[in-house]
Amino acid sequence: MDFSTPPELQDLLQRAGAFMEAEVYPLEDAARESFEDALEACNEARERCKAAGLWAPQMPPEYGGMGLGFLPHAHMSEILGRSPLGHYVFGCQAPDAGNMEILHKFGTAEQQDRWLRPLAAGQIRSCFSMTEPGRAGSNPTWMDTTAVRDGNEWVINGRKWFTSGGHLADFAIVMAVTSPDTTPHKRASQIIVPTDTPGFRHVRRLSIMGDLGYGWQSHSEIAYEDCRVPVDNLLGQEGFGFMIAQERLGPGRIHHCMRWLGICERAFDMMCARASERLIAPGRPLGSQQVIQHWIAESRAEIDSARLLVYQAAWKIDREGTRAARNEISAIKFHAAGVLQRVIDRAIQVHGGLGMTDDTPLSWFFRHERAARIYDGPDEVHKTVLARTILKKYGIELGSQGS
Amino acid sequence: MDFSTPPELQDLLQRAGAFMEAEVYPLEDAARESFEDALEACNEARERCKAAGLWAPQMPPEYGGMGLGFLPHAHMSEILGRSPLGHYVFGCQAPDAGNMEILHKFGTAEQQDRWLRPLAAGQIRSCFSMTEPGRAGSNPTWMDTTAVRDGNEWVINGRKWFTSGGHLADFAIVMAVTSPDTTPHKRASQIIVPTDTPGFRHVRRLSIMGDLGYGWQSHSEIAYEDCRVPVDNLLGQEGFGFMIAQERLGPGRIHHCMRWLGICERAFDMMCARASERLIAPGRPLGSQQVIQHWIAESRAEIDSARLLVYQAAWKIDREGTRAARNEISAIKFHAAGVLQRVIDRAIQVHGGLGMTDDTPLSWFFRHERAARIYDGPDEVHKTVLARTILKKYGIELGSQGS
Amino acid sequence: MDFSTPPELQDLLQRAGAFMEAEVYPLEDAARESFEDALEACNEARERCKAAGLWAPQMPPEYGGMGLGFLPHAHMSEILGRSPLGHYVFGCQAPDAGNMEILHKFGTAEQQDRWLRPLAAGQIRSCFSMTEPGRAGSNPTWMDTTAVRDGNEWVINGRKWFTSGGHLADFAIVMAVTSPDTTPHKRASQIIVPTDTPGFRHVRRLSIMGDLGYGWQSHSEIAYEDCRVPVDNLLGQEGFGFMIAQERLGPGRIHHCMRWLGICERAFDMMCARASERLIAPGRPLGSQQVIQHWIAESRAEIDSARLLVYQAAWKIDREGTRAARNEISAIKFHAAGVLQRVIDRAIQVHGGLGMTDDTPLSWFFRHERAARIYDGPDEVHKTVLARTILKKYGIELGSQGS
Amino acid sequence: MDFSTPPELQDLLQRAGAFMEAEVYPLEDAARESFEDALEACNEARERCKAAGLWAPQMPPEYGGMGLGFLPHAHMSEILGRSPLGHYVFGCQAPDAGNMEILHKFGTAEQQDRWLRPLAAGQIRSCFSMTEPGRAGSNPTWMDTTAVRDGNEWVINGRKWFTSGGHLADFAIVMAVTSPDTTPHKRASQIIVPTDTPGFRHVRRLSIMGDLGYGWQSHSEIAYEDCRVPVDNLLGQEGFGFMIAQERLGPGRIHHCMRWLGICERAFDMMCARASERLIAPGRPLGSQQVIQHWIAESRAEIDSARLLVYQAAWKIDREGTRAARNEISAIKFHAAGVLQRVIDRAIQVHGGLGMTDDTPLSWFFRHERAARIYDGPDEVHKTVLARTILKKYGIELGSQGS
Repeated sequence: MDFSTPPELQDLLQRAGAFMEAEVYPLEDAARESFEDALEACNEARERCKAAGLWAPQMPPEYGGMGLGFLPHAHMSEILGRSPLGHYVFGCQAPDAGNMEILHKFGTAEQQDRWLRPLAAGQIRSCFSMTEPGRAGSNPTWMDTTAVRDGNEWVINGRKWFTSGGHLADFAIVMAVTSPDTTPHKRASQIIVPTDTPGFRHVRRLSIMGDLGYGWQSHSEIAYEDCRVPVDNLLGQEGFGFMIAQERLGPGRIHHCMRWLGICERAFDMMCARASERLIAPGRPLGSQQVIQHWIAESRAEIDSARLLVYQAAWKIDREGTRAARNEISAIKFHAAGVLQRVIDRAIQVHGGLGMTDDTPLSWFFRHERAARIYDGPDEVHKTVLARTILKKYGIELGSQGS
Repeated sequence: MDFSTPPELQDLLQRAGAFMEAEVYPLEDAARESFEDALEACNEARERCKAAGLWAPQMPPEYGGMGLGFLPHAHMSEILGRSPLGHYVFGCQAPDAGNMEILHKFGTAEQQDRWLRPLAAGQIRSCFSMTEPGRAGSNPTWMDTTAVRDGNEWVINGRKWFTSGGHLADFAIVMAVTSPDTTPHKRASQIIVPTDTPGFRHVRRLSIMGDLGYGWQSHSEIAYEDCRVPVDNLLGQEGFGFMIAQERLGPGRIHHCMRWLGICERAFDMMCARASERLIAPGRPLGSQQVIQHWIAESRAEIDSARLLVYQAAWKIDREGTRAARNEISAIKFHAAGVLQRVIDRAIQVHGGLGMTDDTPLSWFFRHERAARIYDGPDEVHKTVLARTILKKYGIELGSQGS
Repeated sequence: MDFSTPPELQDLLQRAGAFMEAEVYPLEDAARESFEDALEACNEARERCKAAGLWAPQMPPEYGGMGLGFLPHAHMSEILGRSPLGHYVFGCQAPDAGNMEILHKFGTAEQQDRWLRPLAAGQIRSCFSMTEPGRAGSNPTWMDTTAVRDGNEWVINGRKWFTSGGHLADFAIVMAVTSPDTTPHKRASQIIVPTDTPGFRHVRRLSIMGDLGYGWQSHSEIAYEDCRVPVDNLLGQEGFGFMIAQERLGPGRIHHCMRWLGICERAFDMMCARASERLIAPGRPLGSQQVIQHWIAESRAEIDSARLLVYQAAWKIDREGTRAARNEISAIKFHAAGVLQRVIDRAIQVHGGLGMTDDTPLSWFFRHERAARIYDGPDEVHKTVLARTILKKYGIELGSQGS
Repeated sequence: MDFSTPPELQDLLQRAGAFMEAEVYPLEDAARESFEDALEACNEARERCKAAGLWAPQMPPEYGGMGLGFLPHAHMSEILGRSPLGHYVFGCQAPDAGNMEILHKFGTAEQQDRWLRPLAAGQIRSCFSMTEPGRAGSNPTWMDTTAVRDGNEWVINGRKWFTSGGHLADFAIVMAVTSPDTTPHKRASQIIVPTDTPGFRHVRRLSIMGDLGYGWQSHSEIAYEDCRVPVDNLLGQEGFGFMIAQERLGPGRIHHCMRWLGICERAFDMMCARASERLIAPGRPLGSQQVIQHWIAESRAEIDSARLLVYQAAWKIDREGTRAARNEISAIKFHAAGVLQRVIDRAIQVHGGLGMTDDTPLSWFFRHERAARIYDGPDEVHKTVLARTILKKYGIELGSQGS
């Protein structure tokens, strides 16, 4: 058992952290209202990030990335997560990052050439169309979007939302039912759809917690209306949609958790700084209040223990694969999301009125990371799934909804 | 002991509720992005509200109001609170309502003629300048804004923020230190400042949780720069600023609490409706999930008990006055704010992705009512004050910060 | 709406409170290890209680009681609840009190003469046999104990536990299945069984949270082994067992809640006293700690709001009957139990090591009132039932287990 | 970073676990009422433990122990903690274990021969007298017990309580003020007092949460009344009492935390087993309830993350010493205690009425481990200390009580 970080990783993290402070944090003010306003500056920072050898930590060198293993990338993800702009500037922003991953794992050589290479280079953008407004995201096998084969084409029909980055994407990867009559987990396939395909209709950017957003910081509603793409646009095999989604989501949850811990650290730091600087009476800092001290202490313990739990899950994925670590992934997903929400809440309370304003990143975190308990499987689903697996060892079999 | 609502009040509440559903809720969609977009429609609804005899429930008939007592108005406040637009349409929106109250109690006849009458009629708008960016709102006696007498004028200097409605207001009531050398609670006075006075500078609308807002739904930063007003603009006596603020805030907290309970009921209703309509599998509503049932049950108990606590405080104010009910007011302020936050949070979780969008009022409640635990005294101050009063009966005297 | 207590009730409560302090609290030390050690002294206090006109507040005068209505008795119950000995000394201790109630409502004249009269006078003792070790108490219609009619006798077989006071009782009222093939809620009947009946076997007093207890403060396991009683011992009609149990439990839950609030007040008072007296440094009381102040404030708000919720439920029972107040009763049951546990927990923490000892009543409350969230329907059942009723208004019907 | 357990440690833990199940759990029933009843059987099990080579894991081989390092012993501590009897049977029970540790570190050769050797062999028993009834344990430098030098003797006067195992101990180590006028942390010394010394008066065993206890499972009040011991009985140097106590408490907290995690695992296992076996309706196990599933999932995540936090602290102690790991120790102390209380509480609720009885170890855990948040520094002190250290980095210095 060894809790130390290897010196070379420590060094890398320090460089990444320094880059964040020098190049990323200063862009936040401009991005606060809308990512659009900071886009150009972010893109310039991307070039500096490439020059600094910090681009695309998760991608193999042949795609211009750093080729970090899973656990080291988890460490990176925390550093980048401290700013809403970090992952974008470093070339590993959702949903592009997840799309790169599945294109890399399941794409044909042609698909990789056409889509993955420019995506990894940051030259094009992508989106991922899975969630539907009419169906509960907590039951991902139940969807209405269909892709029917017609000659050499898939004809896709349906409506998706929370298709992040949809309004600027060059292509979408869409989940659609291709075999409605088979077992639920084999009904859907993933298909690549260039966004200029007729029948791909961008309905609207959803206004989310007060923001329309822009680019990957936006979430679109998309209508697929007799949208036709070549059969070769199938990603992986027919009926593998759900399996690929799992491959995408499992490790993705680790990255989310690490990003949340980055947010926690940022909020924690702001909370402590505010507690130290703000006076409640002459000569008496806010941090002299015992209740605030206790929030600081509780946050410290919660963040640190949650981080270890995430590390351990990442370590297990590295050694035994995503499937073996399913329980661990479920546990960190809801556990870290809970820590995140509590820490942000305390940091806002310590900031008082200022915490309500958009003068600090806390408001952005508070508003947009409320979704942490919802996306990629709500808390309730992960808890149920974890408990079901545990109870199986005690001899009882429960359905996926727990009863 | 009697928990019934008198029939005539019940009838009034029903009429108010029906007006809300018919005239106010439909305006919400337009107001979602900015109150500005719904302003004209809201003003038309105000006229219908006057015509329906529901205008300004808290004001005496001579000012065009309904002349309700304190407890009945608390009941009304819950009904109106169900929509972010309710209080505006009914003519009892903060900060105008509070300003009406103190002008009515402490204003001279001239002041009442010039400011109160048109304010009560909804013809002009006002704001209240108390909180300062450089000083903790939790210690209201510590402020930097000063008003120095120079001949027949007050010369005001300082910076305020969270001056709600400041960008459209016709006049401000500003708290400023007039006697810096006396005992803390007697240092400040309240002064009426027309917003077209030279030296009243509107710095900016603060962006709050993603919204610039508009009108009373906005919060401004104001600079007072050698701003001169006649000495007659003093509200009440010199040095009474803090006392008047208490008179304003005490009952105001009841109204906030009742408004929050209105929000709770709206969110609760949406949560139950969503749990009933949304299917997680064919034929299986979300509300079949035991965890969601428990959120519903816990919310019901928490809302109902909090409401009774607020009623009791209002009842005590009606009988014994604000000062006698100080403990009760402190208790409801933090207790109801906590219930509010929990109920909104649960309602969002039940809505899943939809709860994150601005397609429902939940996002607005979640974002803007996070401030409930901060404004008018943060939870921490109210808890400390309440405990201090209780412990005094046990023989120990503690300073206002609790140690 | 009126939150005042009528002067005559106030006066009564004051007298009861004074009696508690003078006559009951002093008996606690002796009773701490086992109620047995204080029994004689308690019985003497009972006589003084009768002499003071405070005996059996809930019983009609013809049975020697005070004949209080439901809401006034709820008030009394809080006063008596402050000590584990209160209800016994005042002649309204569970399970005797509940048995008196159902004998009064459903007993024949003969049954009342033989069992109710001496029970109300405190001359005999009783117990109530419902819960079974082999069946979940949360599903009361599922029980294994049977009563089969054989000529003029019921032949009872089965095993019960948590039969409070079973080892000293003169008679038991036992729930047994008499019509196994009918609809679940009509299967059982209640039958009076003198404890000297052959086949009534007292197996053991359960050791509960460290105490064997004694008398009503003990909980027995009872075996019914071909236990025969006359058919006339049926209480009410055949198949009415469940209905009578509901009649017994509904109002009983109010009394439990009020008793818990009495415990809360006692613990709250001890917490404040300790915070005032205990020094953490010379001249610095424990209560100067902000965290402790906040526990005090939160406890105050939680207790007061919970009490109002219980009052309202009692008021509704008084006006509309138990059935109409079912939702309110479910809500207070879990809500007040939660408040109870939190307040006791805080009081113990404030007492530090002393709180762990049996030198104060806190340990007894902590240990034995953990059951508050379990008996008379665990929290989970009450929440599910309440939510189910609420959701029915939204158009969905859910089974009793919620799914 | 490596989360694996070395194979040889895994093997050892498995052997220890097997010994627990075969030799220790079966003794629990007898020990439930009082450890006294199981003493002889426990002592026999100790001999088998020695024979199995599992005795005194923390002691060096020259004292008959296994000589485990700190982190391996932490692992052992979790296994032993699953039963209230584990540490006793394995020869590493508090307070003996802590006394061995400080005698080993600070004792003279004579002291070690006389006290440590037989103690490590399990031939004699000891106690540790620090906490005083009249002084807050949260401020350990403030004590009233004094040791005044008189010739070749210390004359000790004062009153202690929570002197665990005091009624059977052969010697006590007592903290007493020897230099009242120096700086607070240097006022006290530790002195060895044979319990047959005149003036060592055993006042009583405290009744703790319903149990008088016996041996180390008991906590005594001790009066030191002109109690004289030779000056050579000083442990370490004069004025080093507090420092030695810190050396004893720091690692001791790790052991407590690991023991708590052992309890958590035991309670978790019982919770899952009960959820699987108990039916709430025919064919429907309790574990089909979603709320119970969520308790299981939350417990799993909380236990696992807390354990990693404790491991990390132990790992740091191993590498950098106790002082360097002070923050980590404070964090785990309150964090793990909180997890412990929540897990036990959930396990009891899942057990329903059975959870209230002493038929399972849950009641013992619930009652006696409530103290986990109090002893060795209450939560509140550890939180304050941790926050103070953190805030120091932000430039503010706060007193030890946080204000």
